[in-house]
Amino acid sequence: MRRTPSQLRDGREIIYFDRDDAPVRAAVDARALDDRAVLGELRFDAFTGEWIAIAGHRQSRTHLPAASDCPLCPTQDGRLSEIPESEYDVVVFENRFPSLRSPEGAWTLPGEHIGAQAPAAGRCEVVCFSSDHDGSFARLSTDQVRLVIEAWRDRTRVLSALPYVRQVFPFENRGVEIGVTLHHPHGQIYGYSYLPPRIVRLVEQDRLHRQQFGKGLIADVIASEIADGRRLVLHTEHWVCFVPFAARWPFEAQLHPLRPGVHDFTGLSEAEAEELAVIFPRLLRAFDQLFGVTMPYVAGWFQGPVNGPLEERDAVTLHLQLQSNRRAPGKLKHPAGSEMSMWAYISDVPPEQSAELLRDAWTRA
Amino acid sequence: MRRTPSQLRDGREIIYFDRDDAPVRAAVDARALDDRAVLGELRFDAFTGEWIAIAGHRQSRTHLPAASDCPLCPTQDGRLSEIPESEYDVVVFENRFPSLRSPEGAWTLPGEHIGAQAPAAGRCEVVCFSSDHDGSFARLSTDQVRLVIEAWRDRTRVLSALPYVRQVFPFENRGVEIGVTLHHPHGQIYGYSYLPPRIVRLVEQDRLHRQQFGKGLIADVIASEIADGRRLVLHTEHWVCFVPFAARWPFEAQLHPLRPGVHDFTGLSEAEAEELAVIFPRLLRAFDQLFGVTMPYVAGWFQGPVNGPLEERDAVTLHLQLQSNRRAPGKLKHPAGSEMSMWAYISDVPPEQSAELLRDAWTRA
Repeated sequence: MRRTPSQLRDGREIIYFDRDDAPVRAAVDARALDDRAVLGELRFDAFTGEWIAIAGHRQSRTHLPAASDCPLCPTQDGRLSEIPESEYDVVVFENRFPSLRSPEGAWTLPGEHIGAQAPAAGRCEVVCFSSDHDGSFARLSTDQVRLVIEAWRDRTRVLSALPYVRQVFPFENRGVEIGVTLHHPHGQIYGYSYLPPRIVRLVEQDRLHRQQFGKGLIADVIASEIADGRRLVLHTEHWVCFVPFAARWPFEAQLHPLRPGVHDFTGLSEAEAEELAVIFPRLLRAFDQLFGVTMPYVAGWFQGPVNGPLEERDAVTLHLQLQSNRRAPGKLKHPAGSEMSMWAYISDVPPEQSAELLRDAWTRA
Repeated sequence: MRRTPSQLRDGREIIYFDRDDAPVRAAVDARALDDRAVLGELRFDAFTGEWIAIAGHRQSRTHLPAASDCPLCPTQDGRLSEIPESEYDVVVFENRFPSLRSPEGAWTLPGEHIGAQAPAAGRCEVVCFSSDHDGSFARLSTDQVRLVIEAWRDRTRVLSALPYVRQVFPFENRGVEIGVTLHHPHGQIYGYSYLPPRIVRLVEQDRLHRQQFGKGLIADVIASEIADGRRLVLHTEHWVCFVPFAARWPFEAQLHPLRPGVHDFTGLSEAEAEELAVIFPRLLRAFDQLFGVTMPYVAGWFQGPVNGPLEERDAVTLHLQLQSNRRAPGKLKHPAGSEMSMWAYISDVPPEQSAELLRDAWTRA
């Protein structure tokens, strides 16, 4: 794998991740770009104890452009895109409309009180999985997925070293049904400067579990799912996938490495990464097999928090949370009153039933 | 107001709330109905410490029927609906496809541990706001809204007396963009047998606030919003409405009674209820004025928890949380990767800006 860092016209970083025999990446960004986006705001929600990012400048971001105007395609035939090169394997660059970005000077998260606010420090990166506009992660070659995993590994290492970053979160949103505004196969990486609420909860549940049982929560849940078996989707040499016992979404699966103590992508062994490059896209194809239609999904990678207490880091091991809001061929699950207002999830699909459907879809994927 | 309780063919309760001069409600449900839905399951999500309701039988529920098949219209011209009467003012009945329903025999919520589950005890009711299929809450007369408020008051009193109910939650989902499956103007009331996660958080934040300041959180937030003024939408004799300082959704507002200590609808004075009947539908009309299009929304009423510790009840006073996922005329906010996976909300609309738009829309509503 070859890594080539460069800069876009407005100073944003761009990094190419290529096969060893790829051409040299030396193209220069020839666009005239406006100044970089302003820094948004973090605000403390006193009723929930959570931080919310407010990014007013994002209202004008690119929204479902024609394929010929895709900003994630390589620069070709004089059409200048976000990627100066005329082809690429995998490329990562800082988002032009970031919700979170590098703060100016020293930065600390303020105390939690009514009216607390701070600049929205952090990092938002875009990861182009392939230069093929019409491709999808599910259809990438194993070699190509390996390059993406190397990009995630690199970005996890680099973003973890930023003193204001607390959580590195690689994810992909796929499908207009889930709000995707660009069709080109791509994901994102958020470097949050605060612990996201879902991580706060997981750390707290792990703390209670260790208090009572003297060992980590995630490992015990994995052991319990393997022992039960009814919600397992696959169980390979290095990985296990199951539908969560209390799934919120109609189709939802978690993929965990079997080896304990892998806290993020940088901790994966070569063999674990190799196997992941085979089973992850196949799991996505299994989702598409469920109803024979392309499934909208959020694929989010949980990793151990950084630059904080060791207990937080220990609580979270690397795993994928794959969630789809499609509950039937023509029907979506909408988070409405109970979910939006009370955060009380009602699911229509029993996890054992969706696991059975996914096991069957896996054999055909 | 006249209250007439009755029963549907399958044993479900139905209650008419009418003007004093309305006809007697004595019609009998002439349908042949299947047995009542089975009881779903509550499952404990060990990673988040939250209860999820699994209601597999709901997959087959009525989905966007033609207007002539509306189950919420009165029974007319031989077309048998959920409401046996040939007209009504406001009517409440138990949901035919309930996520939560009355348990058989004694019921207690189990302890929180990996694999914990229980029958999905609780109550799900439907509230028809009007017999006019094409109406909307925003366009109800003041008298009609007063009847709805009386229905909410009655149901809050009755559901609070069920020993397995911990939270009574009246709400309305409006618009297909938010997942509404029936167009007839109606809301729902959930009686949860567990504290919904959003209430758990509010109770916890109130506890921390009282520890530090010796007084309740909600009252202090209201005082702080009135003093600041930038996010106020309206401030009347009995009510105040503001956009939350850290709003999650593009357009969001809270409506609180000014008098402290009103924990639910049963605590409202006559004057407070009268004023609410005027300003609540006007607030909904103001939302529709924002872009000149009918806005999708969730209107959820927070009330003090019941059948639990006094601190929980004390923490929550009655208020409306009104949330819309429309961020521009042709654009919706989708909760995608950051929200669905990490529960970290990114908002594109600064609260001060949406408050200004709402204040202006209010004058035209």
